[in-house]
Amino acid sequence: MKELILGGARSGKSRHAEQRAVLSGLDVVYVATAVAGDAEMAARIGGHRARRPESWLTVEEPLALAARLEDNAGPGRFVLVDCLTLWLGNLLAEGEDVFRRERQALLQVLPGLAGPVCLVSNEVGHGIVPANPLARRFVDEAGWLHQELAALCDRVVWMAAGLPLLLKGAS
Amino acid sequence: MKELILGGARSGKSRHAEQRAVLSGLDVVYVATAVAGDAEMAARIGGHRARRPESWLTVEEPLALAARLEDNAGPGRFVLVDCLTLWLGNLLAEGEDVFRRERQALLQVLPGLAGPVCLVSNEVGHGIVPANPLARRFVDEAGWLHQELAALCDRVVWMAAGLPLLLKGAS
Amino acid sequence: MKELILGGARSGKSRHAEQRAVLSGLDVVYVATAVAGDAEMAARIGGHRARRPESWLTVEEPLALAARLEDNAGPGRFVLVDCLTLWLGNLLAEGEDVFRRERQALLQVLPGLAGPVCLVSNEVGHGIVPANPLARRFVDEAGWLHQELAALCDRVVWMAAGLPLLLKGAS
Repeated sequence: MKELILGGARSGKSRHAEQRAVLSGLDVVYVATAVAGDAEMAARIGGHRARRPESWLTVEEPLALAARLEDNAGPGRFVLVDCLTLWLGNLLAEGEDVFRRERQALLQVLPGLAGPVCLVSNEVGHGIVPANPLARRFVDEAGWLHQELAALCDRVVWMAAGLPLLLKGAS
Repeated sequence: MKELILGGARSGKSRHAEQRAVLSGLDVVYVATAVAGDAEMAARIGGHRARRPESWLTVEEPLALAARLEDNAGPGRFVLVDCLTLWLGNLLAEGEDVFRRERQALLQVLPGLAGPVCLVSNEVGHGIVPANPLARRFVDEAGWLHQELAALCDRVVWMAAGLPLLLKGAS
Repeated sequence: MKELILGGARSGKSRHAEQRAVLSGLDVVYVATAVAGDAEMAARIGGHRARRPESWLTVEEPLALAARLEDNAGPGRFVLVDCLTLWLGNLLAEGEDVFRRERQALLQVLPGLAGPVCLVSNEVGHGIVPANPLARRFVDEAGWLHQELAALCDRVVWMAAGLPLLLKGAS
């Protein structure tokens, strides 16, 4: 099963994905896309890490997500990716070539992975259109990516106030 | 049937509305409210246009939306308006008198139109309250307009990641 | 019954909460958290007040929400709090100690209140992540507060275009 967990900031996306991982009863591989570039981000990463069971394997991958999924997904393993929005920001910072290559690789690899994969991503497009062209680009790319991934996933959930709302698939 | 398709940026609103138009089996009139004021907007307009069937009649109307609906709606025709948020921005740029007149005209005309009409609009009020008073005004007016239109429509859909979530009416 | 009404700006949250109050058939206590610091806010407050029945008791409380709920909640009374986002902003402006004390007090007091309470709050975390650290903090705290309150409430509704979407509980 491929899952996409969407929601706003602090909507409970990561926690819901972590519960899905625990409920699977499988070995869990946690793919972290965050890069601790400043103290605030380091604190956020630390907070997420403290909540995860020690038995989970953590893989840090800011860019080559498709390759890491191919390495780690398989029967008996639950792969949790948190989160796609940071990954997207990392890709766009690397330039158009890296962005297009890695984005396309994820979309190509995802359907063929043998085991369950759960992707967490931020909904960022429901506020006022940003005045900053880079922010506008980011909002566009996040929205388009979510549409393409949702079409490939079996289950899509939108989180609000820690509560899951099913957009696709069974609860 | 009157429909309102809401959703964030790149949530698949236009595509869903276009699918509704195709599924209707009717002649389609596409009312475009966008004005190509800069290169970015021209590119967005071009992208939308390339996706539409050639058989559709396109009507460009940045302001007098009620009049264009009265001209074009009727049995056997599906009228698709994309999008209300740009129209609202156009109206507010023209000043209070034009804004109030055209907004009121749309609300008065809509219920009496004989054929199906599908209105696409952006959800912009779920981010942080904008510091800019004009942006705040825009968020307020968009929200109030959506409420009044939703009360008049038979079907209201909220889009996320290309997936429709029904807020009112039947799927 | 404890209820949480979430939604974006001008999504119809207050109106929905007011309808719930009227439908309850109980005496209504309206707890207003807004402080009329400028003309725009005074106008917003005036608009809300003009819509409320004269029989409702209005209590203004920018900070000590838990104490006001203890004073006013009880069998035969419907307490409506509008809104938590303004209250949260008021608390953060007072400093960390007041913020932590009052936030914790609300979470402790809410489950034990004898009568129905309806809390209105703004969803602010679905736009682009704000560049301003204070805005980012506000988005984080609003999201975390919503998660904790939603877990304590019997009914959670997300409003869009004046239409309620049930996230938890029965309609």
